[in-house]
Amino acid sequence: MANSSNYKLSAATANLKYTELYPYKDSAVNSKEFLQKIVDVLMEFVRSTNDRKEKVLEFHHPEEMKKILDLKIPEQGLSLQSLIDDCATTLKYQVKTGHPHFFNQLSCGLDIISMAGEWLTATANTNMFTYEIAPVFILMENVVMTHMREIIGSNWKNGDSILAPGGSISNLYAFLAARHKMFPNYKEKGIATIQGQLVMYTSDQSHYSVKSCSSVCGLGTDNCLMVPSDIHGRMIPAELERLILDRKGKGHIPFFVACTSGTTVLGSFDPINEIADICQKYGMWLHVDAAWGGGLLLSKKYRHPRLTGIERADSVTWNPHKLMGTLLQCSTIHFKENGLLMSCNQMAADYLFMQDKLYDVEFDTGDKVIQCGRHNDIFKLWLQWRAKGDEGFEKHMDKLMELSEYMVKRIKEQPEKFYLILEPEMVNVSFWYIPSRLRNVAHSAAREAELGKICPILKGRMMQSGTLMVGYQPDDRRPNFFRNIISSAAVTEKDVDFLLSELDKLGNDL
Amino acid sequence: MANSSNYKLSAATANLKYTELYPYKDSAVNSKEFLQKIVDVLMEFVRSTNDRKEKVLEFHHPEEMKKILDLKIPEQGLSLQSLIDDCATTLKYQVKTGHPHFFNQLSCGLDIISMAGEWLTATANTNMFTYEIAPVFILMENVVMTHMREIIGSNWKNGDSILAPGGSISNLYAFLAARHKMFPNYKEKGIATIQGQLVMYTSDQSHYSVKSCSSVCGLGTDNCLMVPSDIHGRMIPAELERLILDRKGKGHIPFFVACTSGTTVLGSFDPINEIADICQKYGMWLHVDAAWGGGLLLSKKYRHPRLTGIERADSVTWNPHKLMGTLLQCSTIHFKENGLLMSCNQMAADYLFMQDKLYDVEFDTGDKVIQCGRHNDIFKLWLQWRAKGDEGFEKHMDKLMELSEYMVKRIKEQPEKFYLILEPEMVNVSFWYIPSRLRNVAHSAAREAELGKICPILKGRMMQSGTLMVGYQPDDRRPNFFRNIISSAAVTEKDVDFLLSELDKLGNDL
Repeated sequence: MANSSNYKLSAATANLKYTELYPYKDSAVNSKEFLQKIVDVLMEFVRSTNDRKEKVLEFHHPEEMKKILDLKIPEQGLSLQSLIDDCATTLKYQVKTGHPHFFNQLSCGLDIISMAGEWLTATANTNMFTYEIAPVFILMENVVMTHMREIIGSNWKNGDSILAPGGSISNLYAFLAARHKMFPNYKEKGIATIQGQLVMYTSDQSHYSVKSCSSVCGLGTDNCLMVPSDIHGRMIPAELERLILDRKGKGHIPFFVACTSGTTVLGSFDPINEIADICQKYGMWLHVDAAWGGGLLLSKKYRHPRLTGIERADSVTWNPHKLMGTLLQCSTIHFKENGLLMSCNQMAADYLFMQDKLYDVEFDTGDKVIQCGRHNDIFKLWLQWRAKGDEGFEKHMDKLMELSEYMVKRIKEQPEKFYLILEPEMVNVSFWYIPSRLRNVAHSAAREAELGKICPILKGRMMQSGTLMVGYQPDDRRPNFFRNIISSAAVTEKDVDFLLSELDKLGNDL
Repeated sequence: MANSSNYKLSAATANLKYTELYPYKDSAVNSKEFLQKIVDVLMEFVRSTNDRKEKVLEFHHPEEMKKILDLKIPEQGLSLQSLIDDCATTLKYQVKTGHPHFFNQLSCGLDIISMAGEWLTATANTNMFTYEIAPVFILMENVVMTHMREIIGSNWKNGDSILAPGGSISNLYAFLAARHKMFPNYKEKGIATIQGQLVMYTSDQSHYSVKSCSSVCGLGTDNCLMVPSDIHGRMIPAELERLILDRKGKGHIPFFVACTSGTTVLGSFDPINEIADICQKYGMWLHVDAAWGGGLLLSKKYRHPRLTGIERADSVTWNPHKLMGTLLQCSTIHFKENGLLMSCNQMAADYLFMQDKLYDVEFDTGDKVIQCGRHNDIFKLWLQWRAKGDEGFEKHMDKLMELSEYMVKRIKEQPEKFYLILEPEMVNVSFWYIPSRLRNVAHSAAREAELGKICPILKGRMMQSGTLMVGYQPDDRRPNFFRNIISSAAVTEKDVDFLLSELDKLGNDL
């Protein structure tokens, strides 16, 4: 890229090409100097991410950004110095998702230990399909997955788990296993041969990946029923039962319920025990999508009542890359029953997963996934858990929840400026910001509509000032509103105070 | 882990916990020292990976390895020094997939530039669903994907592409888009409502992920027909047509052909043009799975005739993490037609992908994928391509092919010790090693069986000596045989000589 750099390689190295590095050259000298300079660039990004005086982002519109950056693929390779400059420029314009004033996504923060783990993962550059080429990582996966299952429930120890590239694919695994368990012949014969239309259920607040399963897997989205939720955003069990009976009456086959523990927008928790009773009554698979809320399993104080009953599920999605702050991506799917992943997904690829190896091939995982090769997503989580211990993760969860409670308190103390939409169960705080002109207006649908219109404008100002990022969205009950997330260990009470005062500074004239 | 370390933090830092690092503490001092020590560990791994005197691996059986390592999750977090030691120990027992004597997988090698890119990716720690939080990376994705499509064919420029977590998921995207294009109602109504059984075709040499699509998506594996291949491992077009007509005769709906460019075991290339003619004749979607062979598109010398006709496909899978040496994972799927990814996969999740944003939301990708969040897999490829240029990648491809030709020549020069199974079209060299006792035995099915039995034993010796890794497998025509892969830029002719002499050293008494 065009920008000049603060990171200068030595004159002897700057104009060299990649062919002077490993593995093209035997000597470590140039490789070391190059990598060390990259590390300097990264260290400065880490520093500035943690510096509250630095901006969260330097916003440019896509067309402007294209002019600022030189992104083209050259015919001839560039010099090592140009590559260093490329890295520095890339980070200059990247949003600092670990900045204490970034409240925009479910995944916020930059955990240094997990980051170090990911640097190692990159350097080890291996695939997760066999013990043969990832011995330590495969064993780590076993240890951490067993630990997570034990946290879900004491009856889960002998189940099975796998890491997947994101919660959506984890939910897909659950769907596939459920279908396979109930209709083992579909794998060869196809679902067209199942006598009756399969139907799945999830709440109208669930993540869209659940509905996506119904499309991907051939049920059709008309057969993924969105069960109404109550004012807190929790699935209404009586509505679930009504919709099950309705489809049964049509001769359909309800077989799968995806319950959400921590909805994307409101952070609500479906009542697992009541839903489990219904699943039991009708012989349906219960999946708990705790991609978001799963982290609270680690807190004695906040686990109940939110996740009470989770041990009754058949499968659980839980994303460490969300509340636990593990680097992206780290998603896990757990099954109470062992063996299902293998029998469901195995394609008997003997040419890849041979049975006559030197070692116990029970440790190979390639044949039980739909991915074949998998990125190593375990090391960054394992190292982080070694650093924090169970105790450290519990403290982290409690702190995030306490900060969210603090934010709610601060919002309630300023009713003229902020309107709290509901008492949160989690770190999602849903609210409207009220500009000066609407402060003395009685709350009504008309005022909500006005407050909703302000959200994108205020968000635009945040991005252009670069001082803050908070997400907004509409839902099925209200126009746009802000959803603030505290999932970063960087956030303090002062940052929450800053967030509220900065919103007011940027938005009071709207 | 228990092992003592060569990497000592200062006495002041060694016993500290993670809470003394960012973001818990404002000062950069401890974070810098910790990360620098991690980098020292990684630099040594890079050095030893590139040192031919070092072993490729230090093998231990899983149960032994569990005793050597301390992998448990502690109640209380460990010290920073313990974490450094954990990293060093992990790499001590990790297989060096970038070692010049690692010929075991399709993905071999450790590209330093791509690795530096992945370190940056980890540090930037963002998700790829919106321009809002990944502006530079989203633009890079556009630039690189357009460049790759232009390489596939001049008529592809205005198509669409996405990065996926591995070739299996890329192939799944192709299947989903094909089904959506031909049966747009299935998305809502399900495939049970399509009038007739959908049928897909691929060769008996294809990757098992193609067959897996038929199971995942509800067709059933009985409706994924494995078209016979010729002795070179290439799909026989006449057989494809026969099987299409056979199913049409039953009232079924053949709709999808997955042609392979670079099969997993033999490295064979299906004849694309002849298959494209058949697809055209019967109105079927043509997908080319060039996950493995796609890299040869970058070589004027080797592209033809292997990939001739690829521009006639509807979709192409191409994995830079294989032949191009990009770090794991980096897989791409390309479509000739723009808009299909979006219309196929969009679930209208307005609460995540708002249309009223500050910037042009055409740049947001989250709604056209089945993943929701995606790992940033583009930066490591972009940086590598900047370093190499098109020219550097072309040289890389030509070198890999020339080294494979060299290996074939050396094998043919030693017919008493090695039996070449077929003339390779790619860098897969399939052969048997012949121990002393079988050298004067005429080649027959009985001798093949004996040679096959030797493979796992010889592989075991390679792993236990730690000097070499080469993969083996059976196929549908023969018992176990070795499949050597040269996909690493580290390999030289001397390494090929070493490989052959080491096999003889380890195996001549078998």
